[in-house]
Amino acid sequence: MAKKMALIATKGTLDMAYPPFILASTAAALGYEVQVFFTFYGLPLLRKDLSDVKISPLANPAMPMPIPMPVLVQALPGMESVATMMMKQKLAKHGVATLEELRDMCLEMDVKFIACQMTVDLFEFDKSEFIEQCEYGGATTFMAFAGDADICLFI
Amino acid sequence: MAKKMALIATKGTLDMAYPPFILASTAAALGYEVQVFFTFYGLPLLRKDLSDVKISPLANPAMPMPIPMPVLVQALPGMESVATMMMKQKLAKHGVATLEELRDMCLEMDVKFIACQMTVDLFEFDKSEFIEQCEYGGATTFMAFAGDADICLFI
Amino acid sequence: MAKKMALIATKGTLDMAYPPFILASTAAALGYEVQVFFTFYGLPLLRKDLSDVKISPLANPAMPMPIPMPVLVQALPGMESVATMMMKQKLAKHGVATLEELRDMCLEMDVKFIACQMTVDLFEFDKSEFIEQCEYGGATTFMAFAGDADICLFI
Repeated sequence: MAKKMALIATKGTLDMAYPPFILASTAAALGYEVQVFFTFYGLPLLRKDLSDVKISPLANPAMPMPIPMPVLVQALPGMESVATMMMKQKLAKHGVATLEELRDMCLEMDVKFIACQMTVDLFEFDKSEFIEQCEYGGATTFMAFAGDADICLFI
Repeated sequence: MAKKMALIATKGTLDMAYPPFILASTAAALGYEVQVFFTFYGLPLLRKDLSDVKISPLANPAMPMPIPMPVLVQALPGMESVATMMMKQKLAKHGVATLEELRDMCLEMDVKFIACQMTVDLFEFDKSEFIEQCEYGGATTFMAFAGDADICLFI
Repeated sequence: MAKKMALIATKGTLDMAYPPFILASTAAALGYEVQVFFTFYGLPLLRKDLSDVKISPLANPAMPMPIPMPVLVQALPGMESVATMMMKQKLAKHGVATLEELRDMCLEMDVKFIACQMTVDLFEFDKSEFIEQCEYGGATTFMAFAGDADICLFI
């Protein structure tokens, strides 16, 4: 019987969007059956258009910066977009796949995406903006799979 | 034998306070034996009075905002309280239980809460502010349960 | 056969640097075989010199502050250093081991540290700055161990 991996994706920043897709695609490639439950800020990662996914340099002194930058400068208008652009260039330069590519890879390998219905209601998300290949469910639905998983992570 | 879920709750913001209580109550309702270890910023979630639990719009560009707001505006005095009020209204409007309600639900279903003694000492928390239904312990205590758990998550 | 714990350390702030080292050393002391995969912002925790590891008071209204401080003040130049100094004094005062001490303890108990090669490339880290007792690998390497672990956490 195939091993199982269950992921809960709760973050929606460009950096923390990577771990669920990297782990899910890696596990699927190794033959794992994988389910990812997208909830809270993770839900926008199911949007067809991921160009809104941004990074924030704030509150993360561990982020390597090309030049040291005072916190107040990081808070200036446009700095999120600048940081996001720089990160995307870094990723492209080093040949790291885009979020869209990793997500497609997951779908091709039958990773199951579940969107948290409560979060959809709460933030009044428009389901038509989401990819078609996701199901809607709650914590109970997910627990059925997670309870038997070999690896279960909260991201 | 009942399945087991072990949670480590390390965050204390209003949004990230929900996952431990939602997951714990869901699992308990499904018949799981559940223990939650509250440590670092998660500890204040054991206070009798949870009205101090706040959300921050900063450093989270993935948070859906009613109106786009420059980062510097988000940093203005009072914005944390505004964001917290807005989030609470959203939760109430959509019939999501309050943190207190979810916590009570957990206690009624015998979810075991363990407060990290090291964090209590470190931040000089006043134990009399905490609910009576929690035990005090360390990572070693918790590991005994977690090592046999079917689901173990770091939140 | 010894129980196994697999940790993914993705955060690099002073506060969130503690959980992987505390959990790893506790588990190792209990006889667990432990592997920690350092990736994203967790990678700098493998530097020989950890004096650059800082804390940010921003975006964490749950952080206990000695005196209430407006968010904008927290963003002023030097406030990260002040918060870091205060946290280190707190830790020392309460006899909590330093990160270096906990890391050494892990190494003495044969905890295996794996540095994420993709992150090293992406952020162009200088391997000569890292401790010698770590291996380099990717998600696939780590999954082999994690898939059989009794506890697997994403920190």
